[in-house]
Amino acid sequence: MATALIVGGNGTIGRAVVEAISDFGWETIVAGLSSGDVQVDIASMESIQAMYQQLPALDAVISTTGKVHFGALTEFTAEQFAIGLSNKLMGQVNLVMAGLNKLNDGGSFTLTSGILSHDPIPAGCSAAMVNGAIDAFVRSAAIELPRGLRINAVSPTLITESAPSYGPFFPGFKPVDAATAALSYLKSVAGRQTGQVYAAV
Amino acid sequence: MATALIVGGNGTIGRAVVEAISDFGWETIVAGLSSGDVQVDIASMESIQAMYQQLPALDAVISTTGKVHFGALTEFTAEQFAIGLSNKLMGQVNLVMAGLNKLNDGGSFTLTSGILSHDPIPAGCSAAMVNGAIDAFVRSAAIELPRGLRINAVSPTLITESAPSYGPFFPGFKPVDAATAALSYLKSVAGRQTGQVYAAV
Repeated sequence: MATALIVGGNGTIGRAVVEAISDFGWETIVAGLSSGDVQVDIASMESIQAMYQQLPALDAVISTTGKVHFGALTEFTAEQFAIGLSNKLMGQVNLVMAGLNKLNDGGSFTLTSGILSHDPIPAGCSAAMVNGAIDAFVRSAAIELPRGLRINAVSPTLITESAPSYGPFFPGFKPVDAATAALSYLKSVAGRQTGQVYAAV
Repeated sequence: MATALIVGGNGTIGRAVVEAISDFGWETIVAGLSSGDVQVDIASMESIQAMYQQLPALDAVISTTGKVHFGALTEFTAEQFAIGLSNKLMGQVNLVMAGLNKLNDGGSFTLTSGILSHDPIPAGCSAAMVNGAIDAFVRSAAIELPRGLRINAVSPTLITESAPSYGPFFPGFKPVDAATAALSYLKSVAGRQTGQVYAAV
């Protein structure tokens, strides 16, 4: 049976992804900062490597996690930009770098970016930067991966289940429910394309 | 007379930008790591702040500089990714952050990204990531800038004058000469749009 690791699998999107991948007939392993089957802090390469050492060979690594700071552009500090760069951006990139030898031939990485790269909101400049970086990294990494490995990103809009908290920051954005967004992750994992950015909108 | 700062104005693209902006009738100030009218290391926020303190109020800040490491994806190290993030990405972002109060009302920032964000080459994963981040940052920052300030990016392909060195890495890419690429910078500075990514191809 094929096995997928879902980093952030206890989050709003992650739970729906676990369900979609399970329903498709794959075994799932959930990684979380303090919950799940195995713990990982994606901001730490050492933590990522320690996580992989505890796991069997995988057929898919899915990331549905990553922190960024939200705040007014004119008040952003270097430390606040660094959160997004070290966590959501390099955290996900390092899941790929450290996972290259953990994936079986033909396996896939699926990262999470987001709509703010091209449809910005106030206070979202770090999220935009990080999302744009992830989408471009995926397109570029896809042409260099060995052994038929694939890599895609899912770029979700506001998630319906998160709208009570985040909705006020996204006026006019049509939310998508987590189960629908999860379809894009399943498409990445079970499909054959690579270097794609699937918009979950 | 309006004044533009060109950071990297002694580089291949920079020299052509200085000429285009001068021909348009603006005063130009060139900043460089070790050459130019004023020195700056964009990887250091302190160096950027020290540069601005030596300058008069400006009507445009143009960046035509930024280092990234090129290397095979599977061999990339954390330190190599950090070069692009601290230099070409955050170096240019910090030119904006530290320059917010240096620009006259209606002034503009113009950053440099590049074609590899969406048209990748082997060894270009860091460049792709950084370029994608810059394009997305520009689109997002544009909606938050005060006082009618504007921000755009220019995304050049291979530059004709650089083709003897870099051409072998860009098979099938149609180069653009620096003077033609410079037109996109002039459009950003002298035009009225904001949040744009001008493809210099």
